[in-house]
Amino acid sequence: MKKLWGGRFTEGAEAWVEEFGASIFFDQELVLEDLEGSIAHVTMLAKSGILPEEDAAKIKEGLQVLLEKANNNELTFSVENEDVHLNLEKMLIEQIGEVGGKLHTARSRNDQVATDMHLYLRKEVRDIIAKLKGLQEVLVKKAEQHVETIMPGYTHLQRAQPVSFAHHLLAYFWMLQRDVERYEDSLKRINLSPLGAGALAGTTFPIDRSYSASLLGFDGIYENSMDAVSDRDFILEFLSGSSILMMHLSRFCEELILWSSQEFQFIEMSDKYSTGSSIMPQKKNPDMAELIRGKTGRVYGNLFSLLTVMKGLPLAYNKDLQEDKEGMFDTVKTIKTSLLVMAGMIDTMKVNTDKLGQAVKQDFSNATEIADYLAAKGLPFRQAHEVVGRLVLMCIERGIYLLDLPLETYQEVCPLFEADLYDVLDPYAAVKRRNSEGGTGFDQVCQALEKANAVLG
Amino acid sequence: MKKLWGGRFTEGAEAWVEEFGASIFFDQELVLEDLEGSIAHVTMLAKSGILPEEDAAKIKEGLQVLLEKANNNELTFSVENEDVHLNLEKMLIEQIGEVGGKLHTARSRNDQVATDMHLYLRKEVRDIIAKLKGLQEVLVKKAEQHVETIMPGYTHLQRAQPVSFAHHLLAYFWMLQRDVERYEDSLKRINLSPLGAGALAGTTFPIDRSYSASLLGFDGIYENSMDAVSDRDFILEFLSGSSILMMHLSRFCEELILWSSQEFQFIEMSDKYSTGSSIMPQKKNPDMAELIRGKTGRVYGNLFSLLTVMKGLPLAYNKDLQEDKEGMFDTVKTIKTSLLVMAGMIDTMKVNTDKLGQAVKQDFSNATEIADYLAAKGLPFRQAHEVVGRLVLMCIERGIYLLDLPLETYQEVCPLFEADLYDVLDPYAAVKRRNSEGGTGFDQVCQALEKANAVLG
Amino acid sequence: MKKLWGGRFTEGAEAWVEEFGASIFFDQELVLEDLEGSIAHVTMLAKSGILPEEDAAKIKEGLQVLLEKANNNELTFSVENEDVHLNLEKMLIEQIGEVGGKLHTARSRNDQVATDMHLYLRKEVRDIIAKLKGLQEVLVKKAEQHVETIMPGYTHLQRAQPVSFAHHLLAYFWMLQRDVERYEDSLKRINLSPLGAGALAGTTFPIDRSYSASLLGFDGIYENSMDAVSDRDFILEFLSGSSILMMHLSRFCEELILWSSQEFQFIEMSDKYSTGSSIMPQKKNPDMAELIRGKTGRVYGNLFSLLTVMKGLPLAYNKDLQEDKEGMFDTVKTIKTSLLVMAGMIDTMKVNTDKLGQAVKQDFSNATEIADYLAAKGLPFRQAHEVVGRLVLMCIERGIYLLDLPLETYQEVCPLFEADLYDVLDPYAAVKRRNSEGGTGFDQVCQALEKANAVLG
Amino acid sequence: MKKLWGGRFTEGAEAWVEEFGASIFFDQELVLEDLEGSIAHVTMLAKSGILPEEDAAKIKEGLQVLLEKANNNELTFSVENEDVHLNLEKMLIEQIGEVGGKLHTARSRNDQVATDMHLYLRKEVRDIIAKLKGLQEVLVKKAEQHVETIMPGYTHLQRAQPVSFAHHLLAYFWMLQRDVERYEDSLKRINLSPLGAGALAGTTFPIDRSYSASLLGFDGIYENSMDAVSDRDFILEFLSGSSILMMHLSRFCEELILWSSQEFQFIEMSDKYSTGSSIMPQKKNPDMAELIRGKTGRVYGNLFSLLTVMKGLPLAYNKDLQEDKEGMFDTVKTIKTSLLVMAGMIDTMKVNTDKLGQAVKQDFSNATEIADYLAAKGLPFRQAHEVVGRLVLMCIERGIYLLDLPLETYQEVCPLFEADLYDVLDPYAAVKRRNSEGGTGFDQVCQALEKANAVLG
Repeated sequence: MKKLWGGRFTEGAEAWVEEFGASIFFDQELVLEDLEGSIAHVTMLAKSGILPEEDAAKIKEGLQVLLEKANNNELTFSVENEDVHLNLEKMLIEQIGEVGGKLHTARSRNDQVATDMHLYLRKEVRDIIAKLKGLQEVLVKKAEQHVETIMPGYTHLQRAQPVSFAHHLLAYFWMLQRDVERYEDSLKRINLSPLGAGALAGTTFPIDRSYSASLLGFDGIYENSMDAVSDRDFILEFLSGSSILMMHLSRFCEELILWSSQEFQFIEMSDKYSTGSSIMPQKKNPDMAELIRGKTGRVYGNLFSLLTVMKGLPLAYNKDLQEDKEGMFDTVKTIKTSLLVMAGMIDTMKVNTDKLGQAVKQDFSNATEIADYLAAKGLPFRQAHEVVGRLVLMCIERGIYLLDLPLETYQEVCPLFEADLYDVLDPYAAVKRRNSEGGTGFDQVCQALEKANAVLG
Repeated sequence: MKKLWGGRFTEGAEAWVEEFGASIFFDQELVLEDLEGSIAHVTMLAKSGILPEEDAAKIKEGLQVLLEKANNNELTFSVENEDVHLNLEKMLIEQIGEVGGKLHTARSRNDQVATDMHLYLRKEVRDIIAKLKGLQEVLVKKAEQHVETIMPGYTHLQRAQPVSFAHHLLAYFWMLQRDVERYEDSLKRINLSPLGAGALAGTTFPIDRSYSASLLGFDGIYENSMDAVSDRDFILEFLSGSSILMMHLSRFCEELILWSSQEFQFIEMSDKYSTGSSIMPQKKNPDMAELIRGKTGRVYGNLFSLLTVMKGLPLAYNKDLQEDKEGMFDTVKTIKTSLLVMAGMIDTMKVNTDKLGQAVKQDFSNATEIADYLAAKGLPFRQAHEVVGRLVLMCIERGIYLLDLPLETYQEVCPLFEADLYDVLDPYAAVKRRNSEGGTGFDQVCQALEKANAVLG
Repeated sequence: MKKLWGGRFTEGAEAWVEEFGASIFFDQELVLEDLEGSIAHVTMLAKSGILPEEDAAKIKEGLQVLLEKANNNELTFSVENEDVHLNLEKMLIEQIGEVGGKLHTARSRNDQVATDMHLYLRKEVRDIIAKLKGLQEVLVKKAEQHVETIMPGYTHLQRAQPVSFAHHLLAYFWMLQRDVERYEDSLKRINLSPLGAGALAGTTFPIDRSYSASLLGFDGIYENSMDAVSDRDFILEFLSGSSILMMHLSRFCEELILWSSQEFQFIEMSDKYSTGSSIMPQKKNPDMAELIRGKTGRVYGNLFSLLTVMKGLPLAYNKDLQEDKEGMFDTVKTIKTSLLVMAGMIDTMKVNTDKLGQAVKQDFSNATEIADYLAAKGLPFRQAHEVVGRLVLMCIERGIYLLDLPLETYQEVCPLFEADLYDVLDPYAAVKRRNSEGGTGFDQVCQALEKANAVLG
Repeated sequence: MKKLWGGRFTEGAEAWVEEFGASIFFDQELVLEDLEGSIAHVTMLAKSGILPEEDAAKIKEGLQVLLEKANNNELTFSVENEDVHLNLEKMLIEQIGEVGGKLHTARSRNDQVATDMHLYLRKEVRDIIAKLKGLQEVLVKKAEQHVETIMPGYTHLQRAQPVSFAHHLLAYFWMLQRDVERYEDSLKRINLSPLGAGALAGTTFPIDRSYSASLLGFDGIYENSMDAVSDRDFILEFLSGSSILMMHLSRFCEELILWSSQEFQFIEMSDKYSTGSSIMPQKKNPDMAELIRGKTGRVYGNLFSLLTVMKGLPLAYNKDLQEDKEGMFDTVKTIKTSLLVMAGMIDTMKVNTDKLGQAVKQDFSNATEIADYLAAKGLPFRQAHEVVGRLVLMCIERGIYLLDLPLETYQEVCPLFEADLYDVLDPYAAVKRRNSEGGTGFDQVCQALEKANAVLG
């Protein structure tokens, strides 16, 4: 089959080599963006007097037909035509004749494919932001139901201090909010037009890049043509932000998995988000949470792939850049579905408030209360800490908790103790009193919910 | 040695285990930030009535003494005190007595270390931005000298179209500008205060987080205490942005290395940025450029280290997070020096304008000119492309270039050719005519230089 | 649709959630291995008296039918049945009735899928080794034609010392030989049977693991059932080895790309492994070499993905492990095709021996010869080096090469020089004289070719 | 300061640039190997008649003095001399005079540094193997004490089937055994000599590479000089194997952390391997386990750094390769200490056998027993699975376990049930009966311990 670029070639590649070099298997994902970009390009060519109006009209008409077919999944791509651009150009020429060959005036595949990817990622990042907000809403809704549900707060997976379950959930709300902000920041760099940069150097035709950019809804254009065709920062920034997001989800999933265990029993996953075992009939596994945790690896890998690809490439376009797409598509799909599954899991999970409430009564997570109690009475915190450490050790040796220790014992260890001590040891009181800004105190959590709702608008 | 947290412990670790767990070897890098944070904390404690004014005054005085010593490198840290925080607290107590133990009221090492790192990274990111601008200035200066220096532009490392040397340099200017913008965006998330989040849940003391945040110059505070102590997004975002920056530098260095080769001879590096061989006396190697290219691996590695560390960690603080620092420090140092070395290399390199000018006359990089010429005469671009392909093949077979082919031959191949054809084949004209926005045409390059200067302010 | 593990479930997942969790989209790649494993398993069940012979016979017959269909691509998989294992079990039961349900006696999907992957990777690693040898053969063949073709040898991309083109090619031969050896080493750990490990703990049935292992051609069995089902080292080792291999190919491709440039012109790629430009008619791009260099990123990414997935997973099987497959399949495919394309490129490329020969005469890569000349006459090497450095500088200032400098000048700089000096400066002589073991001297290269042929057998 | 390679240079670098390029800060780690290599080299030079015996004797004597000083930490390195090689050469010349300059005859820093690293890594990999065996011994010792300690076995962090604690520990024994084998395999490629490869092309001197290799205890020599100086596979293979090892440790640490939690309480860490909190007096954190888990990131990062560095480098030596060292040193140190800390933690931890024993009685991990019971009576396994699933659901609804369900209920659901059913439900029996090869049955575990002891020798 004759190549569109084959004038100087005397031999063609064998089919399997051609297949190795072809991108049509995956870049057909860009079919709508490619047509959209071509329509803007030809509109600009006509407006700038580069193409006669009648030629432009024919081409646009042809592209509209292809667009309709693409929307109905009626296009068939061939590997001989390498990529989505040449496939569509060939189809256009088949449909409207040789005039179709004028579409490629003042344009190279280098700026064309870059334009497609900017359009694609703009659309998908906006969609991801919407899905992030969807998950945030589920978190807020769940948190609103559990402001006064008390649970152990952990550091080092050891019980540290009791917290509000809502407070714990809202920690993820704010992580996700940073993800939203990072994606929003990245849009500034995504929403720029490389169209018109040509192969690398611009073009001799009197094109109007700002006009085609505005037709495509871009906020501006790339200032340098060589940069425009060889830049993949916007994809790297997307993959970086997505890696951080997946890291957040992996932490959340780790907790959901822990909480679903027989040992914790803090929550019960809906059957809808669990699966069974082919051999053990009793099993109900938090498969979806594990899978999202696992998919973190996939997104990290996609980031590292592209960083590797780009390392040390001279300007401008190199074929290596073709490897920019699959990881991007895979990440978009992974992120979008993971966010939906997370939202579904959180929304449908059952919180075992009783278990949580019992848990905080059977540990030493109220020890800080006594240290603060003594510090408030003027004992330097370091000494207070030391005193309480000894009390805890005493309890462990006797197999009891701090609430079980009689006042005399407290007073023997430190004369500052008084009977009001027992009030501060109650977990509910402990949470309530942590009323510093951003703390787990109930008033703080209610304010945080208000802020969260305000953020969601 | 007695630990500050050792009340409940009956046995101590052996020295080598203690050393494994200690972070003082590297976190002493944070000594200034730690003292700065402590001063703000104690000021807030006094203002909020949590500490008596006289205690606070003594503590502040003690901290000021330590700060002065730190600035003079007079502090000696010990591994028994684990980390910079406990080392400094111990020193403070040794200096001002037990009252020093009150400094840790309403604060945990968890929010303390997070505060230190936010302060550190804010300072360093601002410095990096300044150094980025320094490199951009060197690029602009060099570009201004070479607007009309013509060189081959490449795609696939094959000569593609001639470009202005200034245009090529400015491609890097705009890459670096995105780096600046990404760092600036990241400052929004770096410049937030975790101080007051306590161990994880806030505190029972009536602290004023906004006040201590403002003393430290933060733009705001973390909204959730659990998020505040376990978030390392700001470091990941720094490492991601730095990886992209290093990728840019690796591309530039690759080109400098190519250009310095015997085959290209486009530039000559200053002796100041070159080294010799222990065995081959003639060698002058572009060592610095190679080293920066190589250091890309180091920064990528630091990013992936921390992404790995964070994956799947439950809330809130876990000891794994101690692994967040060395990669950050190493990246800061690598980036800063790389930027300075790049600026020096570019500034001092000699551009062989003659070699560049000859190069563009001995290739087919003017072939697009003829295709555009025919397209402008109404031949569909695809057919024009085909025609020129055949002409190129004809030249290769005869061992000549396009300018050497007689008009009759052109006209035999396509009757649209006329004598004005030879004008468009001249490389200088070819560059000049690529005057589309952001293109390599001299007018465009001049405008780009104006924009670049405006960006630098 | 009723799940095979659904007895204790009261609600099913929605279709899109089910799809998220399903692996049938990609694990159908394992269909042959899964059937092969099942046939061995049921054979063992019968031999061990766990299943009646007639049941086993029916099941085997059913599996054979499925195997035939699989070979003819006649099987249709459904997402409702999650994975290749449950799909095939369902098909078996549909075909031979409820007795098909006995196949899963004493087996879990955990040991089943691990078995499939061991079988798969054994097959593919052996195939990769064969393809590696294929590429090595091409290298040897090409090298045999170019023992006395002299080219510049480089360090730091600066000309260092002239070398035989064959010697340069053979450097890659030995790299690939290490790849072969690493893959062969890895087969020791791939070719072990996890079958019979059950879900994690072994089984209560009197199975004979060694028997089923021998039926499948395994060298041995996993010694511990929990390790057997949760180990993915063998895939990680495959991905590590493949990353190193791709690194080798990336280095080779970088050189092919350099050598194909207008500046080097050392080789010319066949049209069959090159492509053109949609806009620049003269372009002939070394696309395949660039693509392989780019695909390095993909394989690195796959390695990092799985390392991330595995990090911190508790024993034994976790759903995260489902993420082990796609990267493995993708790597297998990438490696196999890259090796074939490399072999084709090398085989068909034209070596410009004239260009290479000229190149070595226009540089200072013979400078070491003089240093060695002086050292052989007793001057400490360090002083000899210093002398030659000054001579090179002298030449550069005069715009000449070392052969052009008159003997008097040499003797003025150092009285040890005599007329025989000019003999050692000849590049051909310089190569010939580097006859140390493994050096580029022609005798050495001939011996190396013999060794290489011996290695290939 | 005058450079040893500076003959052709007219300008020197500024100090800070020199510092950027210098490696002496970290490559002094190789001082012993460098001296050892030099001694072998000069011995060979004398034996081959390249250096007069008396010169060689003086040089060796000088090197021995330096070696002694190095062992006593009495050498002072300077950044002006760049690296360990030039520092030592300078010291040698200062000590024995100009004759010291003859040491570098027939050697380049390229083959010298490669030799150093091969020697270094051989030593360290052997040490790591010894430390791995040390950890394996601790595991075996601990396992021997807990053959009949029963605990819940998990998949998906859900209780699956009860297992022997020894069996669980031994899963890690076999993982570590693979690590040992991988390191041993890698020694084949580490223990080869690059010495004599020269800068890249071999040397004109009649050296005897096999002789110097044998003096250094190498098993053989690199077959190709260009490969010898540019190969870093052996480091990559070390980093890959180490990444897999750290992954194993991270899994183990994750379990130790889970088991130390209030919710699991399966083990108690020794105070020696735990630390406290600066604010919460009750805390006893499994810091060492968390830190090792975290250090996984560091080793992964080092692997990816070097993979990135190597990608796309042309032959032969490039300065980028200098970046090969720090990650290697850091990994060696991390691995060695992590293995020692792991061994200490496991050795000193207290196993709460009572807690473990109770745990297995309060769950459904005996459900598979009934399914196997029914399958053994002839019910197809799939149907048996279904029956048990319903029984489990019945129990959950009634808040009881399988042992609590009366025989009549069992028989109503399936008439195959008989009174012997209750025997198979006992966890101890369940473990005992899993006596398939490599299973958790006590007999199997005892055999596994024998094999493990045999492996350790």
